[in-house]
Amino acid sequence: MNLKEKIRVIEDFPKKGIRFKDITTLLQDKDALKESINRMKDLADNFNGELIVGPEARGFILGTPLAYAMNLGFVPVRKPGKLPSEVISQEYFLEYGKDSLEIHKDAIKPNQRVIIVDDLLATGGTLLSTAKLIEKLGGKVVGIIFLVELTYLNGRETLKGYNVESLITF
Amino acid sequence: MNLKEKIRVIEDFPKKGIRFKDITTLLQDKDALKESINRMKDLADNFNGELIVGPEARGFILGTPLAYAMNLGFVPVRKPGKLPSEVISQEYFLEYGKDSLEIHKDAIKPNQRVIIVDDLLATGGTLLSTAKLIEKLGGKVVGIIFLVELTYLNGRETLKGYNVESLITF
Repeated sequence: MNLKEKIRVIEDFPKKGIRFKDITTLLQDKDALKESINRMKDLADNFNGELIVGPEARGFILGTPLAYAMNLGFVPVRKPGKLPSEVISQEYFLEYGKDSLEIHKDAIKPNQRVIIVDDLLATGGTLLSTAKLIEKLGGKVVGIIFLVELTYLNGRETLKGYNVESLITF
Repeated sequence: MNLKEKIRVIEDFPKKGIRFKDITTLLQDKDALKESINRMKDLADNFNGELIVGPEARGFILGTPLAYAMNLGFVPVRKPGKLPSEVISQEYFLEYGKDSLEIHKDAIKPNQRVIIVDDLLATGGTLLSTAKLIEKLGGKVVGIIFLVELTYLNGRETLKGYNVESLITF
């Protein structure tokens, strides 16, 4: 199956000049969803991971089915104020201003082998912050898997030193 | 497995007097995650559904693994401005003020049998809005499944007329 054909490209979203890669058309196609998770699993199996982490919100969409398929647990990384127990934070910079991400302090065990999953690799900023959160808690980021990679934004450079895989490239 | 024991209760979050039901402790336990999705699937199998819909953000966490396990597609319902293609909206009222939810116009086919999944049934407001969005597009809500139900908030009254199931009650 050509998964790339299942992605809808939306012109000028969220602003003029951006060609947004809409994954909802893939998600709502049962065969494409199944195939995507199974291919992610094939890639992830190489990493010998013990836990899946996904950043809010689209990382949840792909991270939990992968966790389920691999019989692993899932840990959400969230925007500030959403996680109810004790957290650590990591700031990251946006085009204008900055934002931060949080993870529960007790979500990662020391030396735990963690796979991060997200929908899209653009500049890699969110993912690098997610990796740092895991490492601050003593975890080991053994792989990062994306459904879609925008190669022209060179996010792999930001994530240099990590095992990065993606299913679909633009 | 007693899934209820896997839920962590956090006192006074997000504000004083609330005993927040934290599902992250269940999600990060691989056996509890697997068992939760499998039990949801057992309930969902009775509904003969064709599609899973989950509202942002925790509905994504449970909705996609269920869709994957049942070999169905998944459609996200999101906060305003997040979905890139043409949407319809539904307002709902909060304790103070109001908010709204959106769904892609082409996400549901007429007469499609839809199962809604979310983490928690409280007052039922978000879920009722999600059901209305599906029905506006001609879909049929054949079942609603929650991981956790707060029975003392009587959300089932709000969702009267729908088939409502939950795995864990408080």
